[in-house]
Amino acid sequence: MHGTGEAMIATALTELFGLRHPIVLAPMGGVSGGRLAAAVSNAGGLGLVGGGYGDAAWLRNELSLLRGETKRPWGVGLITWSLRPEVLELALGYRPSAFLLSFGDPRPYAPAIKAAGSKLICQVQDLEQARVARAAGADLIVAEGTEAGGHGGARATLPLVPAVVDAVAPIPVLAAGGIGDGRGLAAALMLGACGAMLGTRFYASAESLGRDAAKRRIVASDGGNTARTRVFDIVRGYTWPGHFLGRALRNRFMERWDGREADLAADADAARTAYQAAVGEEDYDTAVVWAGEGASLIKGVESAAALVAKISADAEQRLQSATSFLR
Amino acid sequence: MHGTGEAMIATALTELFGLRHPIVLAPMGGVSGGRLAAAVSNAGGLGLVGGGYGDAAWLRNELSLLRGETKRPWGVGLITWSLRPEVLELALGYRPSAFLLSFGDPRPYAPAIKAAGSKLICQVQDLEQARVARAAGADLIVAEGTEAGGHGGARATLPLVPAVVDAVAPIPVLAAGGIGDGRGLAAALMLGACGAMLGTRFYASAESLGRDAAKRRIVASDGGNTARTRVFDIVRGYTWPGHFLGRALRNRFMERWDGREADLAADADAARTAYQAAVGEEDYDTAVVWAGEGASLIKGVESAAALVAKISADAEQRLQSATSFLR
Repeated sequence: MHGTGEAMIATALTELFGLRHPIVLAPMGGVSGGRLAAAVSNAGGLGLVGGGYGDAAWLRNELSLLRGETKRPWGVGLITWSLRPEVLELALGYRPSAFLLSFGDPRPYAPAIKAAGSKLICQVQDLEQARVARAAGADLIVAEGTEAGGHGGARATLPLVPAVVDAVAPIPVLAAGGIGDGRGLAAALMLGACGAMLGTRFYASAESLGRDAAKRRIVASDGGNTARTRVFDIVRGYTWPGHFLGRALRNRFMERWDGREADLAADADAARTAYQAAVGEEDYDTAVVWAGEGASLIKGVESAAALVAKISADAEQRLQSATSFLR
Repeated sequence: MHGTGEAMIATALTELFGLRHPIVLAPMGGVSGGRLAAAVSNAGGLGLVGGGYGDAAWLRNELSLLRGETKRPWGVGLITWSLRPEVLELALGYRPSAFLLSFGDPRPYAPAIKAAGSKLICQVQDLEQARVARAAGADLIVAEGTEAGGHGGARATLPLVPAVVDAVAPIPVLAAGGIGDGRGLAAALMLGACGAMLGTRFYASAESLGRDAAKRRIVASDGGNTARTRVFDIVRGYTWPGHFLGRALRNRFMERWDGREADLAADADAARTAYQAAVGEEDYDTAVVWAGEGASLIKGVESAAALVAKISADAEQRLQSATSFLR
């Protein structure tokens, strides 16, 4: 698996999928397309296509694209509460190595996923969901902290990861939320995780489907201007279960409607027309840019290959020199 | 500094104060008394007495107690916006090695602290405050994540720590919030911190001034029943600056008043009488138990010495075996 003369990080994650680096691309809906997922997989990580709510045409397009670009392991992620059987079947037809479900009970879908030969990855936001994931037969559990971009729960990564590790052992656990560089990956390993899943960092990569103007806003953020909100779900017409909110960059639309969700919902049809126009115009004073607090660590847009190489090399160096703390 | 045959963790923190372990007791107001701070210092960490809002009689009592119990370095922490000059003077009169300020601009107090020979520790919750702390001449900066118990900001520890490290280098940075065991300490070091400050974990220690019934609630918590709120400040009559909220265990009082803060404030005098009675009766369905998400990692009440020994030994072992990830 090596190829270079360097020491490389081996964990339950790299073993499970035959990866060179314990780095997973978060399946950001509409942002983690086939090109980005393939680039992460080709760089030695695990690329997950972000199928989001399950748009069949989009998925078919991106999964076909991905299959033309990589022979390495890859996967797909979908929102559990929005998953339809025909979309599950469609995705499994492309033979992903990994199938990630988040935001809902994965148990109804687990048998089909495992029968198709995909590893089941369940993303959880608290200990109760972790136990459900274990009951579902998850091969890998992602503990996602509240600092992650996009939808998530209320618990923070640093205390959540070791608690999930203890709760589901010996199932391997991946850390997600707030990880943007090799320091975060090395910290995740110290917490008992087998690797890290990164979203926002890869949003601001050359291959992501995010628009340039959105990527520039992530690069400009110091991580302090993100917030969790429901307003973008309301205006887009998605009915999320109550305990999941979406973390995004604060913008004029969020400032206007946060705390006035009922008013927005009451006039959502009119607001949606204006919102969709803003999306088309890449007007991010109105349109959402999902982003996590790890934006503080992002100083520029880079290729996925460069990111995987840099993050893993930095983490390797931190681990290599960990004993230098010891006297 | 060693004394045992074991490898021990040396960092800028242990060097700054001559500690055996890079572990700092958070100055929890009214909970981190002289006995607990002395126990942490005697165990090789740095004990900080929690002076809170600056009750002079309480401070005098606890600092006198502490000085009778330890010859090791120790310190005191106070709430900046509540700090009065006579309390500053009183605390400095006990010659603390460290003086921690949090929640406000430390610059007016920095000269007196440094002139008295104390090291200035500034606790910050975001990057803007980190830059103010640097301007104040802080010898050490604590990056406190939102998962911490008691008052804090909105940013989470895992992404906040490396961002603060980058922003204030070469000033050493301590990680706080969500750290409850050796895994968290080792992770903090990987993030670039020089050690960890622990609050909730020491709340549930034998020597803390927390009541047994409160400690039992922390032990029983899985970390998922904490929330940030203003209701306990309102009922106690403290006017905190708007961006700081306090993280506590959810209880009946919080459930009743959260979201109805204006109603509570309108009738705070009557509510206060009932609240204070509940405090006296150790009725924690009403009285507050400040606690962070690290409560998930706390399985019992232990002595401070046992905690310092176990957390540091676990972290040492993690660092020692970090290279086992490398192939």
